[in-house]
This record gives sequence, C-alpha cells and structure tokens, in this order.
Amino acid sequence: MRPVKIGLLGLGTVGGGLVKILKEHHDDFVKHQGVDIQLVACSSRKRQSAIDLGVEDVFVETCEEVIDNPEVDIVVELIGGTGVAKDFIIMALEAGKHVVTANKAVMASFGKEVFDAAENHGVSIMFGAAVGGGIPIIGPLKHSLTGNRITSVMGIINGTTNYMLTRMGEDGLDYSEALHEAQRKGFAEANPSADVDGFDAAAKIAILASIAFHCRVTMDQVHTEGITKVTPMDLQFADEMGYTVKLLAIARHSDEGIEVCVHPAMVPMEHPLASVNGVYNAIYVVGDAVGETMFFGQGAGSGPAASAVAGDIIEVAKQLTDDVKVFRGCTCTDDYPIVPIDDLTMQYYIRIPVLDRPGVFAEIANIFAKWQISIKSVVQRGGDGRTTDLVVITHEALEKDIQGSIVDIMDTEVIVSEPQVIRLVD
Amino acid sequence: MRPVKIGLLGLGTVGGGLVKILKEHHDDFVKHQGVDIQLVACSSRKRQSAIDLGVEDVFVETCEEVIDNPEVDIVVELIGGTGVAKDFIIMALEAGKHVVTANKAVMASFGKEVFDAAENHGVSIMFGAAVGGGIPIIGPLKHSLTGNRITSVMGIINGTTNYMLTRMGEDGLDYSEALHEAQRKGFAEANPSADVDGFDAAAKIAILASIAFHCRVTMDQVHTEGITKVTPMDLQFADEMGYTVKLLAIARHSDEGIEVCVHPAMVPMEHPLASVNGVYNAIYVVGDAVGETMFFGQGAGSGPAASAVAGDIIEVAKQLTDDVKVFRGCTCTDDYPIVPIDDLTMQYYIRIPVLDRPGVFAEIANIFAKWQISIKSVVQRGGDGRTTDLVVITHEALEKDIQGSIVDIMDTEVIVSEPQVIRLVD
Repeated sequence: MRPVKIGLLGLGTVGGGLVKILKEHHDDFVKHQGVDIQLVACSSRKRQSAIDLGVEDVFVETCEEVIDNPEVDIVVELIGGTGVAKDFIIMALEAGKHVVTANKAVMASFGKEVFDAAENHGVSIMFGAAVGGGIPIIGPLKHSLTGNRITSVMGIINGTTNYMLTRMGEDGLDYSEALHEAQRKGFAEANPSADVDGFDAAAKIAILASIAFHCRVTMDQVHTEGITKVTPMDLQFADEMGYTVKLLAIARHSDEGIEVCVHPAMVPMEHPLASVNGVYNAIYVVGDAVGETMFFGQGAGSGPAASAVAGDIIEVAKQLTDDVKVFRGCTCTDDYPIVPIDDLTMQYYIRIPVLDRPGVFAEIANIFAKWQISIKSVVQRGGDGRTTDLVVITHEALEKDIQGSIVDIMDTEVIVSEPQVIRLVD
Repeated sequence: MRPVKIGLLGLGTVGGGLVKILKEHHDDFVKHQGVDIQLVACSSRKRQSAIDLGVEDVFVETCEEVIDNPEVDIVVELIGGTGVAKDFIIMALEAGKHVVTANKAVMASFGKEVFDAAENHGVSIMFGAAVGGGIPIIGPLKHSLTGNRITSVMGIINGTTNYMLTRMGEDGLDYSEALHEAQRKGFAEANPSADVDGFDAAAKIAILASIAFHCRVTMDQVHTEGITKVTPMDLQFADEMGYTVKLLAIARHSDEGIEVCVHPAMVPMEHPLASVNGVYNAIYVVGDAVGETMFFGQGAGSGPAASAVAGDIIEVAKQLTDDVKVFRGCTCTDDYPIVPIDDLTMQYYIRIPVLDRPGVFAEIANIFAKWQISIKSVVQRGGDGRTTDLVVITHEALEKDIQGSIVDIMDTEVIVSEPQVIRLVD
C-alpha cells in the first residue's frame, strides 16, 4: 500500500483535532479504509503548537515549504479567513496538490476561482467541514440524495447565535447578557459580528445552496439579518403562540429562481428544527423524492470539524491508493436568478409598540389594508397604561408590502418605537 | 457519454417510485452527475404494473431474462424478502452485474454470501435503501464519518411501531386500537409481526452495526423484543417522569464487544430521538471525534426508498461512466464478540402490579436488595383500593439480576400480574 502524505497548514483548534485523529486512528484507517495516511509536513505561526501536538519533527516555518514539499499529496488548509488562506489554497492546487479545507469564507466568496484552479490542474478540492462542523451534509447532498431535485435547504448553522437564542428563550436573558455569557464560555468571539450579524451563516448557506441547486450562490447574494434586535419579549410572545425563534439560513429553489437568506424566524414548535437547542446545528433538506430529512450535530469545535476534514482526507486518499483519477470539483452546472427578498411571500410577526389609546388599532389596520396585507390575528400585549404592544400575525404577504407598511406605521403619531418584524417559517 | 443500463426486478411501491425518478430526472442526471441512466429491462409478477408505469416496452416475463440481458450493467433488486430475491442477487453478481438492492432481510442474514459473490466477480453491491428509507445513513457511515471510531448507533428505524407508540402516548389508544389504526392507514401489514415484534428493526440494526463497527453482525445475533406488551399506562407514567417510550434499535461498541438489541426504551424528553414522532425515523450516531449526530427522515414509502436506490445507482453509474473500477464491497474487517443481553448494565423502569396492603413494598424491596439492585425511586400509582402499581426506577443494574428479581417477585403472594420492565436509555 502506498502511503498518502499530508501537508497541514494551521495548527489551531481544528488542526490540533486533526493531528489527534490522524495519530490515534492511523492503524484503523489502514485496516478499515485501506489507506496509509501520513502527516509529513505542517506549519503554523507558532512552533510551540507543533511541539504541544508532538509533531515538531515535521514542522516547517512557512506554508510555502509545506506546499512545495514534493512528497505532499494532499494539502490541508486550516488557517481560515480569506487572506493568506485563499492564496495558499490556490497555490496548492496550482502545484498539483489535492486540497482539503474547512474554509467557508473562501468557498462562499471565491468558489469559482478555487474550482477553476482545481479543474485546470486535475486535482480535487474537498470542503466538508466548511458547513455544519462534523455533521455530514455536503457528502449526502453530493451522493446519497442525488436522485432528488432538492427544493429547499434550511438550517440552524451558527452555534453561537443558537446558544444565545436558547438562553434568551429559556432563561429570559436579554441580548447583551446572552452575548456576554457566550463570550465567557468561549462560544462567541470578542468581536461577535460574524456570528450575531449572520455573516457566518450566510457563507454556509451560500455553499449549501450552490451544491443543492447546482448553481453558484455567493455570500454577497445572501440577504442577511442578524439577531441583534431580537428581544426576550419577542421570544416570550413566540412561545405563547407555539413558536420558537431561531436564526435560520434558508435557501429555496422555486420557479422564479433561488431564494437565499439568513434572518431570525419563528419556527412552529412541532417542526424538527424547533428542538435544536444550544450550540447544536441542524440542516433540514427537502427533496422531491425523499421528502423531509434533517441532519443534526455539533456545528463547531475541534473534534467535529476535524472529523469532517478527516472524512475528506480519507476520500481523496482512497482514490490515490486505488490509483483512480476522479476529479471532484465544481457541481454548479446551472444558472438561476437570485430572487430579491422584496419579491418573497411569507407570513409575518409584527410587534408594534404604540400609545395605548382608542383608535390606535384602526389607524394601524388601515395602513395594512392600504398595503393589501391581510391580518390573521392581532392581540394587545402588556404595557403600562400609556403604551402597549400590538402583536400582529399576517397571512401570506409580500416582503416589499410589509416594508412599505412599516414605513407608514413609523410615520404615525401613535408609534412609540420601531416595530419588530420576524418572518414565520412553516 | 456511454449510457449506463439498468435492469429492474420488481415493480411494486419502491420499483414504481424508482421508475418515476429515472424518467423525470434523466436529463438532470446527465447534466448534474454526468451519467446517462437508461432502464433497458424490467420484470414483475404483474405485467400490468409495467403498463401502468409506462415501461411495458422493456418488460420481460422473468427475472432471469433481466439478469441475462448482456446490455444490463446494474441489476436493481426491489422484490424484497429472502426467498427468490436472494437467489437473484447472487445470480446477478455471479453474472458480473453490479447490484443495487433495498433488501434489508438478505443483507442482514446473508451479507457474507452476497459480499463474497460480489468480491469474487469484482462488482459492487449497494444497499443504501435497506436502512432508514431515504435517510442518508449508510453513505455517511462509509464516507463522511470514517475519521471516527463509532461508539454507538441508536435508532428509531421502524415507522409502524413509532406511529403506534406516538398514537398511544399522545391520544391514549391502547395497543390493539393503535395497531388497527395503523393497518387501516396502510402503515402496518395484515400480519404485523415483522414490525411489532421488532424483527424489521433487528435486520436494520444488524446492518448498521456491521458497517459502523466493521464487524459482521447478523439479524439472529440481535436481542429482539417488540412493543406488544407496552400499555398506555406505561406511556403515561413515562410522560410524568419526563420520558417517552420508543422502540429503539441499539448497537454499542464497548471493550467487551458489541452490544446489539431492539426493545422498547424510555428516552428522556430532551434527547434528540424523543421528538421523532409518527412514521418518521431517526438514527443517532456517536463518534469519538464528531460527538453526537442524528439523521432524520421518512423511513419508508415509495419516494424515500426510491431516493436511496437512485442515489446508489448514480454512484455506480459514475464509476462506470468514468471507467473507474472501484470494488465497493464488505467493510467487515474486524471480529468482536456479541455481548449477551444478560451481561448488560442499564437503568430500568419496573411497574409491578401488587395487592394494596401494608408490607408489600418491604417484600419487593427485600427482593431487589437480595439481587443487589439499587433503587433510585419508587412511587405507588393508581389502583382501586385492592390493587395498585409500584413504579420502580433502578440505578444501573445488571440485566440478569433484573430478570432474577422478576422471577422472585412473580413468586410472591402479593403480585397481581406480570411486572412490566422497560429499559432506560440516556
């Protein structure tokens, strides 16, 4: 059996997890998968990381040395971000190395460039760890589910925000308390924007949509809203109505094209995604033959992400061992328009803080009527005698009409502060 | 692109679903997967099925004709059962055809024979639809999760019994009412034994254990108990204690070997499996790196099962199209003992119908003490003044001690009817 030689860029959380797997399971991989995987080079900003992981013997100072090492068959990029990581991925592919990466940012924004480089040099690019940590989702979409036309992919794919929303919903923490707790526990970064503003989820849903619909979707095409405006009051009202609030990443393939967005959403309690709590992730996929499926697990962390990276390495290693040349590159063969969020039709939860006086509801109702928005229910909630909240659930309505109605509502004399709008998902 | 030619045995529910997929998605498969899949022969006991499905032009009278057709690259066996289906699978493999099957019974009892035939003739045998219908589970175990040592696989993998238990738990139906309803809705067979006695789940967990632990487990090695004795009373008590009762198929890889069984189990409400209701299936997998993962979806039905079959066909078709010879056969490289159920240690729910009089609890408690069974809680429930139920939750105890204690309890004067024992799972 010819050994398959790995060059590893980055010895952080995921890199460390991978080194552990490759060491502990080397003999299992020989026996069970028929591959002899050897780490022959690694690089990191800190030599100490290599010492701590017991791989100092194969440590080199620069990533270029790893890539240029003629022994290396597969370059594993675990640096992250779109800076040097992207350059090293391209450099490795151009040097004729297969590449395995966990880099969602690069794949969601520069997928075409990466796939082109892989195709031009006849090598594979694998990125199973880019979405959902250790949850097998890209594999099933590319293999087991290929008999289907996938109609929607919807997921809780950011553990930080799911942890925060779970804490806010179950224990009444407000946004900043939940954020501080998440930061204290190491679930959120000091600068939490990528998570709380939805950008991390946007990158992941761009990748999932690209694979599921065979059409390139980039991160900048994803309509993205974060959780910063969600209040415990909204979570409580949701609960009373039989809903839970999740930061959902949603991609749908309709006759109009591809809808792709990230935003807080009210999910019915009985939906499989509703019970996915804490740092767990889940991806819900609907196909025309298979119906509903869901994939659940830890979306981040050393072990889960390294599990996905190892799975990809083994796939490439099997091909090298069998001396089989299979180019596994881009699957984006089709081209569909992205449907603007304004043109989407959904149900809405709208909480409107208003003055508590006669005639207020009539005024609001007239505005909805003007925008042809049909109201399913409206209740008055809480308040101090002077102000109160009108909680409106609409029937299906057009996003742009909802936005128009909000502008009009903001123009009234009765409004106390900006209305809260949360989309309903069924 | 060379066409890949399919010969189909069986035009029942799944066969019909597959014909539909192959027709409707032919052009998508060409464009997205690079394979031109053509149905060139099919057989069924009823010619009318072929007429109804619009494939009469490729209908032949016998399965042998399909297998012997020199054009056929892949034989798809969707007859089911271990009778002729097994013979046709072996015959096809020996004729050098790749085989895709949904046949859990054959794979769970005659896996070695089938894999040997495939290996001897250098062809692939694929059986993704044998477990979990359309849920991608065999694919992930064989690919995305290969970086892990899998420590347990636990599933709700029989939709009929899950539907019945859901109805019994939520609406108070008793066993026979639930069974009749399931039969009326087409979820249960006229002879429901395969489902309600746990045999269907046993076949599936034997297959999952074999793949997850790289060790052949056959159906007859699975300790199997069905749901026929579960009462609405137990479901109600479970609910009050924060549990739900599910028919679980459980496989664990421990230092002692492989534990594999099917039985009703109390699952804590917060466990991901607890909210899997109705005809849905879910498989919960724990790996040393990935941690907990779960795969959810419809475990049966025309579309879901055909989705899995189509996914397997496409995998084989890709290899034929790329002219790549990859033998995908048996992955059972290891050999572990099966741990007898008597040697397993678990927590137990034991409901003991007794005479309602002083001293009864002391008598029962003495029996548990004699068997070294430590009691976590005991409450008296319901009753008519003359009889009552003692509901005991034990700490971890050895199965054989529990069984011994039950024999002793049955020998007392205070027992009214046979105690109900349900294992707890965490």
